[in-house]
Amino acid sequence: MTSPLMASPENVRRVACVGAGVIGGGWAAHFLARGYDVTAWDPAPDAGQRLRRLVDAAWPTLTSLGLAEGASADRLTVTGALEEAVAEAEFVQESAPEKLDLKRDLLARLDAATPQGVVIASSTSGYPMTDMQTKAADPSRLVVGHPFNPPYLIPLVEVAGGESTDQAAVAWASRFYEVAGKSVITMDNEVPGFIANRLQEALWREALHMVANGDATVRDIDLSITEGPGLRWAVMGPMLTFALAGGEGGMAHMLDHFGPSLKSPWTRLEAPELDAALYDAVVAGCDEAADGRSIAELVAERDRGVVEVLRATGRLGRGEGSR
Amino acid sequence: MTSPLMASPENVRRVACVGAGVIGGGWAAHFLARGYDVTAWDPAPDAGQRLRRLVDAAWPTLTSLGLAEGASADRLTVTGALEEAVAEAEFVQESAPEKLDLKRDLLARLDAATPQGVVIASSTSGYPMTDMQTKAADPSRLVVGHPFNPPYLIPLVEVAGGESTDQAAVAWASRFYEVAGKSVITMDNEVPGFIANRLQEALWREALHMVANGDATVRDIDLSITEGPGLRWAVMGPMLTFALAGGEGGMAHMLDHFGPSLKSPWTRLEAPELDAALYDAVVAGCDEAADGRSIAELVAERDRGVVEVLRATGRLGRGEGSR
Repeated sequence: MTSPLMASPENVRRVACVGAGVIGGGWAAHFLARGYDVTAWDPAPDAGQRLRRLVDAAWPTLTSLGLAEGASADRLTVTGALEEAVAEAEFVQESAPEKLDLKRDLLARLDAATPQGVVIASSTSGYPMTDMQTKAADPSRLVVGHPFNPPYLIPLVEVAGGESTDQAAVAWASRFYEVAGKSVITMDNEVPGFIANRLQEALWREALHMVANGDATVRDIDLSITEGPGLRWAVMGPMLTFALAGGEGGMAHMLDHFGPSLKSPWTRLEAPELDAALYDAVVAGCDEAADGRSIAELVAERDRGVVEVLRATGRLGRGEGSR
Repeated sequence: MTSPLMASPENVRRVACVGAGVIGGGWAAHFLARGYDVTAWDPAPDAGQRLRRLVDAAWPTLTSLGLAEGASADRLTVTGALEEAVAEAEFVQESAPEKLDLKRDLLARLDAATPQGVVIASSTSGYPMTDMQTKAADPSRLVVGHPFNPPYLIPLVEVAGGESTDQAAVAWASRFYEVAGKSVITMDNEVPGFIANRLQEALWREALHMVANGDATVRDIDLSITEGPGLRWAVMGPMLTFALAGGEGGMAHMLDHFGPSLKSPWTRLEAPELDAALYDAVVAGCDEAADGRSIAELVAERDRGVVEVLRATGRLGRGEGSR
C-alpha cells in the first residue's frame, strides 16, 4: 500500500456506494440495515428517487431480519458529485455497469478522490482486478468484492485482488465484509467469473441453449430448479450433495457409478478427463469439506435442512397419497 | 397400449421398487410415507438390510413432514425374486445402475413379469426411453420418471416417453406422481439428461474443471452455492432470478446489460448466439412465467422466500454491523 489502511474493519462508520442500480442500491440497503452511514452516487438523473424506492421496498424485509442498532434508511445521502460521495468514506463499493473501459476509468477517478488508505471494492461480475486497476494511481487498494443479487439478502461476497493489489487490502476487505454480516470467500486466484458465477453462468448458458433449441420452456427450466436441485443447494453445495448420491460409499462410489456419464451429452459443456488426479482431488476435497461428519450424518443434516426449506417455502402437504 | 391401463392413478395401492440403492431406496421410503404398499427387489445380498436402514433413517424426517393415513414402514416387503416383486404391482419404479445395456435387459424382463396395463417407469438420470425400450415386448407402457436425490424429499419428477411409448402411459404416470405428492414436469422432447440434469450437469462439469485446474477448492465451490445462488434457487428459478437482476426493466434490461458477458470466459461452456429470436424467446418466456406479477411483486416474493430460507437454515443474525 502506498499509505497505511485508515480505519480498522470494525470501526468503519461511513460507506460510499458508487453506482445505484440494482446491485449498488442493494448494497446501500444492506449497509444501511447494518447501521452504516451511506453516501451514494449515480450519474442517472433519477438515481436518487430510484435508490430511495429500492431501499424503501427492501426495508420491511430488512427490519424482519433484524436491523443493527441505530440503523436507519434516513442515514442515506445521495449526491450528484462523485468526489463528494467518497470524500469522507471509510470504504467504497463500486457497482457501475459491466463495461471494462468504464470500470477502468471510474476506478482511477475513485482512487483519485477517495482518502488515502481507504479500500475500494468493485462489484464486477467477473472481470479480474488486474484488468481493471490499470489506470489507477494507487492500484494497491483496489479489490474485487463480488456480491449476489440482492446484496441485502444473499450473504456471499467473493473477494480477490489483482496483480497490483496489496494482500493487506484483500484481507482488510474480507474482514470488513464479515463484520458487515456477509459470508466471504477470499480467492487466491484471479479466475474470470470467480467461483459462483462460473457455476451459475454454466447453468445459465445451458438454459439459454435449451430455450434456443426448443428443448424446454423458460417456465420448465425454472420449475426444474426450484422443485429439484435448488432445494438442496440452499442447504448443501453441489459437491457434497453429489457425494450423498453415492450412498454409504460417498463421492468415491458416486464417481465410480456416474463417472462414465461425464461422456454423456447431458449438457453442452464438455467434461474434464476424470483421471486419477481429479478423482482423488474430488474425493479428498469432499472428505475435507465433510470435516469428520459421516455420510449418515450428512444425509441427516441435508434432510433436516431440506425439510425446513420445504416448510419455509410452503411446499408441505401436497399430493393425495394412496388414501 | 397393447392393453388398457389397469388402475386409475388415484387407486394405486401397491408399488414395486426395482433396485434398492440410494434412489430406489429413497423411492421406497417416499411411497411408504405416502401410504402405499411397497415391494422391493435388488440383486445385492444385503439389499434388504440396507434398504430397511435407509427407510428407518428417513422415517423420522418423513413423520415430521406428515405421513399419509395408514402409512407404515412395515408395509415394505423385500424379495429376492424380481418376478415376485412386480407380480401384484400397480406401478413399477425401476432404479437400477446407470448402464444402458443393463437398463434395456431389465426393462424387458420387467415388462415380461409385470401385469399387463401397469406402467413401468425408469429413474434413469438421462438416457432417453427410446434407447432403453428396445428389447421390451410391450414398450408402450415404459416411461422415464426421473427423480432427484433424495426422492422422499425433493419433489421434482421429470416424465417423458420414448418413441414407442403410448402418450396415455406418459399422462398416467404424470398424474400418478402428482397423486403421490411429487411435482411433475412432463416433457414433450426426449432431451438427453432431461431438464434439471442438463442444468446441474453443466454446473457439476464446470466445478470438476475448477478442481482439476486448481481454480477453487471443493469446499469453496460448495460454499459459493449455499451462501450465494443456492439461496435464490430454492425460491425462484435461474431465469426469473436473472430477470430481477435487470431491475425494473426485467429480463430485457438484463440481457441488454449482461448480453455481452456471454462472450466472457466465465465458464468453459460456450454460450449460444444471443440473436433476436433467442432474446425474444427468453423475454417472452419470463413474461409468461411471471404470469402477470410485476417486477416489484416478484422481488417482494423472492425476498420473502429468501428470508424464510435464511431463517429456516439458521443463517440470521450474523455479522457485527457498524456498532
